[in-house]
Amino acid sequence: MKYEVRFSGSGGQGIILASVILGTAAAIYENKETVQSQAYGPEARGGASKADVIISDEPVGYPKAREIDAMVCLSQKAAKKYITSLKKGGIVIIDSDFVDIPESKKYKLFKLPMSSTTLDKMGKLIALNIVSLSALVSITKIISHEALEKAITDSVPKGTESFNIEAALIGKTLAETAK
Amino acid sequence: MKYEVRFSGSGGQGIILASVILGTAAAIYENKETVQSQAYGPEARGGASKADVIISDEPVGYPKAREIDAMVCLSQKAAKKYITSLKKGGIVIIDSDFVDIPESKKYKLFKLPMSSTTLDKMGKLIALNIVSLSALVSITKIISHEALEKAITDSVPKGTESFNIEAALIGKTLAETAK
Repeated sequence: MKYEVRFSGSGGQGIILASVILGTAAAIYENKETVQSQAYGPEARGGASKADVIISDEPVGYPKAREIDAMVCLSQKAAKKYITSLKKGGIVIIDSDFVDIPESKKYKLFKLPMSSTTLDKMGKLIALNIVSLSALVSITKIISHEALEKAITDSVPKGTESFNIEAALIGKTLAETAK
Repeated sequence: MKYEVRFSGSGGQGIILASVILGTAAAIYENKETVQSQAYGPEARGGASKADVIISDEPVGYPKAREIDAMVCLSQKAAKKYITSLKKGGIVIIDSDFVDIPESKKYKLFKLPMSSTTLDKMGKLIALNIVSLSALVSITKIISHEALEKAITDSVPKGTESFNIEAALIGKTLAETAK
C-alpha cells in the first residue's frame, strides 16, 4: 500500500499543518511509514501552494509525490495548478465556496461548501484546514477518525484542542453528506 | 549553491515549525528554492525526530537531504542518531544543557546552553525551537536575520510575534557569544 495526498491552497490557510497532522497520525497511530514535504520557490508568494504526504506500509524510498491519489483544493489557483498531478481515478475535494472545476471521468469530485460551513458553525475560518483534513480522511478512509483526533490533539496549540476536534467533526459530517 | 539543514530533537520541541520557517524565509525573502520535509515511522513515538530543509539557487530535483551541511541537535538521542549524516566539515549546534558530543576534526561544534538561557530570559521553554533556528541562521549565515524575523512573524500564531522575535534575538546573541 502506498497512498499520496496533496493539500493545496494559498498561503496562510494552514495546509502544512494539515499535512503534518495527517503524516504523524498515520505514523504514530496507524503504524505506517510517512513522508511529509513541501517545496517552495519565490513564486510561492501569493500564489498557489501545496503540502504533500506519502503514506506507505514500507519505508518510503523516493520522497517526492508523483501520482496523487487524493487532493484537497482550497483555492481556485491551486486547483488549476495541481489538478494535472492527480492520478487517473483519483479523488479531488474542493471548497465549493471558492473553487469550481468541471466534473470529469478522470477523477472523483467532491464539492464541499467548507468555508461557509466553517464560518457558520465556528464563527471564523481559522480551522478550515482541519475541516478539510477531516473531510479527506472521511472520504478516503486512509486513517481512522480516532487516529486523526489523537494527532490533532497532539499537534494544535494548547487550549485549542476542543475547538479543533469540533472542526474535525464538521469536516466528517460535510463529507458524509456529500457521499 | 545548495545547502542542507537538519533540525533534530524529540517530539514536541517544534523542530518542524523551525524547519518550515527556515524554508519559507529562504524562498520568500531570499529568493531561493527550498524543500522542507520530514519522514516518520512508528519508531518516531518518543524517539529521535528530524526535519530537513534543502536551500538552493536552482529548483531542487531530489528532495531528500543526504549530505547535511549544518545540524541542530536538541536531544542526546537525536545527536547520536544523526551525527553520521553530517557532511565532513559540517556544522553541529547542540543544546549543551542536554546534549554532549565529543569535539572532532570531522565537524565544527557549537555548544550553546539554549534551554537554560531560554528559560532564564523568557520564563518558559516554548520558544526553544526559534532560539535554535536563530542560532543556526547566525552561525551559518544561510539567510539574513531580517529575512528570518519576517518569516517568523508570518508563521507563528497571532499575538505571539514579539515573543518569538525576542527568542530569535536570544538565539542570535548566544551564537555570537559562542563564536
